[in-house]
Formats: sequence, C-alpha cells, structure tokens
Amino acid sequence: MRRWILLSCVIVFSSWAFAQDIIRLPAPDKSASMTLFQALQDRHSERSFSERPLSLETLSSLLWAATGVNRTDGHLTAPTAVNAQDISVYVATKDGVSVYVPADNTLRKVTSTDVRKSVADRQQGVANAPVFLIVVSDLARLGDRGDRTVILAAEDAGYVSQNICLASTALGLITVPRYTMDRDALKQALGLTDSHRFMINHPVGYRAE
Amino acid sequence: MRRWILLSCVIVFSSWAFAQDIIRLPAPDKSASMTLFQALQDRHSERSFSERPLSLETLSSLLWAATGVNRTDGHLTAPTAVNAQDISVYVATKDGVSVYVPADNTLRKVTSTDVRKSVADRQQGVANAPVFLIVVSDLARLGDRGDRTVILAAEDAGYVSQNICLASTALGLITVPRYTMDRDALKQALGLTDSHRFMINHPVGYRAE
Repeated sequence: MRRWILLSCVIVFSSWAFAQDIIRLPAPDKSASMTLFQALQDRHSERSFSERPLSLETLSSLLWAATGVNRTDGHLTAPTAVNAQDISVYVATKDGVSVYVPADNTLRKVTSTDVRKSVADRQQGVANAPVFLIVVSDLARLGDRGDRTVILAAEDAGYVSQNICLASTALGLITVPRYTMDRDALKQALGLTDSHRFMINHPVGYRAE
Repeated sequence: MRRWILLSCVIVFSSWAFAQDIIRLPAPDKSASMTLFQALQDRHSERSFSERPLSLETLSSLLWAATGVNRTDGHLTAPTAVNAQDISVYVATKDGVSVYVPADNTLRKVTSTDVRKSVADRQQGVANAPVFLIVVSDLARLGDRGDRTVILAAEDAGYVSQNICLASTALGLITVPRYTMDRDALKQALGLTDSHRFMINHPVGYRAE
C-alpha cells in the first residue's frame, strides 16, 4: 500500500514538473508584411536594448524563422549539412534558459538560472537584453568528418543566425550576432556535453529609447 | 616617336581589356514582393535545373541579396565577424568565372574557363545549372585568431548562403547549398592563394520542366 502511495506521488509530481518545464508556444504568426528584400536592405546590428520583454507570440515567430519546421516532412527554415539538424537554439531570459524544439514548437526548460551576464561576457552593455538566443551545434549529429565537421557546424549556425537577423528586422526588433560568450560557464549552466559547440549568440529586444 | 605609338597601343589595348573584364551590373531590383516569412516558409533545396540562363538583372538582385552593400558606410546585407568582409562570391557560368565586387556592383572576370563540372564534382547531375555561386572566405582578412578563424569564416559563409537560399526563393529560382566541390581544381582555375577557403557553392537556376 505504501508503495502505491509513493508511486502515485511520484507520478503526480512528475506530471506537475513536466507541465512546468514545457512551454507550448503559440502557433508562429507568419503575417509580418516586410518583404525579404526590404529586410535585407534594413538588416544591421544594434547593441542598445530596452528591457521591454518579448511576448510569447513574438518569440514564437522569431524562433520559427530561426529554425522552425517549414514542411510536413520535418525540414527546417535553415538548411543543415546532410540534413543533420545539428543546431539547437537556447533562449535565455531573466527567468532562465529553455531550448527550442522545432518539432512541436515548444520551449523545454533547461535551468532557472539567469545566464545573460555569462552570454554578454566581456560586453556587459548588452546584458540587459530581454532575450538571448544562443546557437549551439551538436557536432555528434554531423558524424565524424575530420576537420570539416566544425566547418559544417559553423556554416549551419550561420544560416540560423542570418534568419534571426532578418526576422528581427521584419518584427521591429534589434539584434547583433556575437561570437563572444563565456563558454565554460554556459556549458555548465546548460548541462551540455563535449560534443556541443557554442557558435553564435544574439541579444534580441527593442531599441532603447 | 615609336615609343609614343607603342604607349598609345598599350593604353588602347588596356582600356579594351579593362572594358572586357568588368561587367557593370544593372542596379539591383529590390521590388520582389515576397515577404521574408513567405520566403522562410518556401525555402527548400532543389537539384534539377533547366539550362535557361539568368538575366543580368536577376543576377544583380541575387548577388546584392547575397552580400551587397545596404548602407552608405559600405556595410553589407550579410554580417561578417568584426566586419572583416572576408567573403567573396564567385559567379561561374559557361562563359567562365567572375567575382562579385559589392562596392561598385560589378563582376570582374577571373577566367574564361567553364569550371561548372569542377564545382559539381561527384554530383554531375547539377553541373548543367546555368550559374554556380561559389562562396569563398579570405581567412587573411579575419586576422590570426587561432582555431576560431575558420569557424568565423564558415559562419560568415553561412550568412551569405542563407541570403542566396532566400533570395532564390523570392526570385522564382531554385538552388541547393553544397559543400562538395573539387577545391584543388577550382583554386588553380581561379588563381586563389592558400589564405582562401572554398566554403559553400550554390547551383542556381530555373526548375527543369
């Protein structure tokens, strides 16, 4: 009997934790009217962020643009070498870090720690951005391709990063692609393995007044 | 007197050769109506090309989207690490290879050799594409950053490559980003140095009927 009570408690707690740790994003709104060529014309880097947060709706559109599913067979907006889909986008806010799961358009909580200062690293001027998107490649998904592996991973990150630049432009947001970040601190905070490589990060938000 | 005649001949011949080797592209048409989000929705890879050539007008729009100047200070549609502008796009057709010069929107002839089979390499099925865009980084422009240099170069190539994917979509063209190519043959044909790295190539054209 005590075993059943214990088991029930575990199930209830797990369900609760599960519900807490997965955010189902609203369906991405793809109706932004800016043309591709206007987004290319307007693309630029900015570094002075207001602290105004992004709505879940805006975040959903931005993440879908970055590396969302755009076909029924699971292919993505950003190509990847041999369709390895090695890129994950982590979303860091004051409330912690989640990873975007394109397949079901969810965010899965990774930590409750605010890591934005670790992402900003030597450039704390951007640390107040409400959101950082951190572009990470899992090299294991590309297989062992010698010297080429990390090149393919970096190219794959570039595709996603340009999508973030252009979508930010079309959504009235500002961003800057950055290579600088405290990789050791982030690896520990996000619980990543040696096969993961931090490629690029993007503070994203609204322009400071 | 003979010296003057010789000098005049040299000047005339140089001007003629100069005119032959530089193509001034028409101003890029940025009026394509497809929204960024529609281009992201429609982006995909295709590999069956018709031999229908691209007009200079279409090529100009495509190259500007890839890595054209989008600001009066010379910044580009694609970001590069520390604004190194390390990426060049080479345009290979049946008539040879030219390199795109964003600053004055020109093509500078590099060779009259048709290198498309060398770009297609082990995948000759794409060799009939009317145009290949070859994305090359000059690592020397990034400075010596140890292991990071080639990663930054590959990321920079990814930005340009995604612009090519999206602009092809908006312009009614098909493409596929490819890593495979005969780098040794291309290095020799294009007269490139050891600091140049062939990152990605794109056959681009119209869908085969």
